[in-house]
Amino acid sequence: MRMTDAIIAEHMKPITGSAIRDVFKLMGRPGMISFAGGNPSDSALEPDVVGEVAKDMLAVHGTKLLQYGPTEGLASLRESTAEFLQTCGVNATADEILPTQGSTQALDLLLKAVINPGDTILVESPTFLGALQAMRIYRANIVSIPTDENGVIPEAAEELIKKHSPKLMYIIPTFQNPTGITLSRARRPKLAELANRYGVILAEDDPYRDLRYAGEPLMPIKAFDEDGWVVYMSSFSKYVSPGMRLGAAVANPLLIRRMTIGKQSADVHSPLLTQAIIDAYLRKGLMPAHLTRICDGYRRQLGAMLDGFRHLPAGTRHTVPEGGLFVWAELPEGMDARALLARAVEKNVAYVPGTFFYPDGGHENTMRLNFSNASVEDIERGMRRLGDALRQ
Amino acid sequence: MRMTDAIIAEHMKPITGSAIRDVFKLMGRPGMISFAGGNPSDSALEPDVVGEVAKDMLAVHGTKLLQYGPTEGLASLRESTAEFLQTCGVNATADEILPTQGSTQALDLLLKAVINPGDTILVESPTFLGALQAMRIYRANIVSIPTDENGVIPEAAEELIKKHSPKLMYIIPTFQNPTGITLSRARRPKLAELANRYGVILAEDDPYRDLRYAGEPLMPIKAFDEDGWVVYMSSFSKYVSPGMRLGAAVANPLLIRRMTIGKQSADVHSPLLTQAIIDAYLRKGLMPAHLTRICDGYRRQLGAMLDGFRHLPAGTRHTVPEGGLFVWAELPEGMDARALLARAVEKNVAYVPGTFFYPDGGHENTMRLNFSNASVEDIERGMRRLGDALRQ
Repeated sequence: MRMTDAIIAEHMKPITGSAIRDVFKLMGRPGMISFAGGNPSDSALEPDVVGEVAKDMLAVHGTKLLQYGPTEGLASLRESTAEFLQTCGVNATADEILPTQGSTQALDLLLKAVINPGDTILVESPTFLGALQAMRIYRANIVSIPTDENGVIPEAAEELIKKHSPKLMYIIPTFQNPTGITLSRARRPKLAELANRYGVILAEDDPYRDLRYAGEPLMPIKAFDEDGWVVYMSSFSKYVSPGMRLGAAVANPLLIRRMTIGKQSADVHSPLLTQAIIDAYLRKGLMPAHLTRICDGYRRQLGAMLDGFRHLPAGTRHTVPEGGLFVWAELPEGMDARALLARAVEKNVAYVPGTFFYPDGGHENTMRLNFSNASVEDIERGMRRLGDALRQ
Repeated sequence: MRMTDAIIAEHMKPITGSAIRDVFKLMGRPGMISFAGGNPSDSALEPDVVGEVAKDMLAVHGTKLLQYGPTEGLASLRESTAEFLQTCGVNATADEILPTQGSTQALDLLLKAVINPGDTILVESPTFLGALQAMRIYRANIVSIPTDENGVIPEAAEELIKKHSPKLMYIIPTFQNPTGITLSRARRPKLAELANRYGVILAEDDPYRDLRYAGEPLMPIKAFDEDGWVVYMSSFSKYVSPGMRLGAAVANPLLIRRMTIGKQSADVHSPLLTQAIIDAYLRKGLMPAHLTRICDGYRRQLGAMLDGFRHLPAGTRHTVPEGGLFVWAELPEGMDARALLARAVEKNVAYVPGTFFYPDGGHENTMRLNFSNASVEDIERGMRRLGDALRQ
């Protein structure tokens, strides 16, 4: 018998894979300056350090790192992560922390633990594409929360909570992907309060927090959580290495237990070697100097990109992020960033059309520009090319 | 507002976590001889080799191993895995292979791709506990196939296929977990034929295949697959390291594509460092000598365990596996292995009660005994202690 698509589960049928990852595949061409990805700079990665640390950890811990480990994660990593997150304003004990495969898996396990088909999730609009795809697989009803230059508008969120009784709100509060916008200081306790008052889980996805190039750090929403309705998700992808796939979920014991059970049958546990490498980064005190160094580089790259906007068509508006990896641009009304991508790629420059980040599409005149993975010179050159392509 | 269990998704409410992993937590006590786990022998693990290889791969590939990678896995690993699986009788191109977090994730992604709530899955009874838990999360209807000392009975499987129109059959054909039984040579093409004739996906979970201590290797069911209905799942957990969490799924392009999409939002990709380490094991030709060495050790341990059955109560029956990690015992009718576990643990010896491995429970007089993680001396001593505990 021949197999057909009829075999596929209903929840997977509408999922076609991340459009963005397909865009990335076009980017390999030589001479291409890509603002499309979300990769750290190669110069922010330390293969020599990681190699030394890996060998060292295996010498110290021996076979323990190669045997099965606990689904809950290595005790040592949970402790060092708790300490690290404390510096971010997240007060969690090791017991409330679950190491995950990036914050991607943290979200997936949270969705798996609580989402029934048809449950409503409130999201920023635009928001992270990967999160939308994960929510769709769990057949969630996705509803956009109005936002402005200070992030989610709490009054609008409250209206939607009353109207839709959502199970979850998904928010990237700091240097948001894709916009680079940061949720203001004043709004953070308000959102925590809404989550606790109405009994809505607030998934706070905060992987860019320590990539700050200007302004003062803000307390996370989690810092204002009263009764454990905020789930904080962090990741070492942007700080140490995305290829290592290590992040962490912080949640109350009820949720952490269910997420741990979900992880048991998803992958048993995260690889012990990558857990030990990140633990060593934290315990050897490598992180602060490392973050300072990479932020210095990213600050210059962001500056070059903001500067390069003078090459873009008159009437183009853009965000001015204080950190993270992305700048968001709105071309003059009527321009179609999706249609223009082919022309840009011809000129050897690439971006991601903004429409992909909207749960309901539209907004064809928007685009996401990443500055972390191109040199200052390439950013200058790339922005000029982009201007040429858009004005042609 | 206080959070209660009402927040948990319906599909997760009945899932209480692997009973077996809770048993493991009791085993840490000093002096305990544990036949309960499924861990490789510490002497089968090579932290020095892995440490060297890790450092080496990071020196050779540099930042490439620390950046984001393709969800499909490293091309080099897919090729070397294809070549490795060819020696097992699995003819697959690199395109049909998806690296996963152990064969656990291979099964999870397959279930995610095809199982709707209520779909029937046929399983051996007893079968692997972790697989049952994963199936329950997807709300599958689990139906047991009658088995005998040669594994699944094809005629019985056909009856059940006609009766239940299952979407999937899950079979561990070689040195099965928990019984150690191997599906006979004659039955393998028959099961492949059934899968292809009736259009039932046959998930062939084969992580123990190369741990053979006697007899001749058999072709996998996948070798007899006509139209791509067999999904082969392999793992490097038992060959190199479970803590590294690396396995592979082999499936037709339709399924591999959907499993890849599922992996995208589960964890983006498997860590590149662990992929590169396993690739190096395969490419440097380390595997054959390594497998010969560990099989020599396990053969002696299995021998000691089989020998030790003379200490067990008269009337105890047990399997005589030709490989793998487990022996299955049936105590005389009326004895309750679950109740007796406390007494065994008092005497510092442990096992897993067999009832946990049955989809419908029962079979209280059965137990699973693992021999890979105790020395020959400890196995002798442990079997004596077990005899004492059971006869008390």
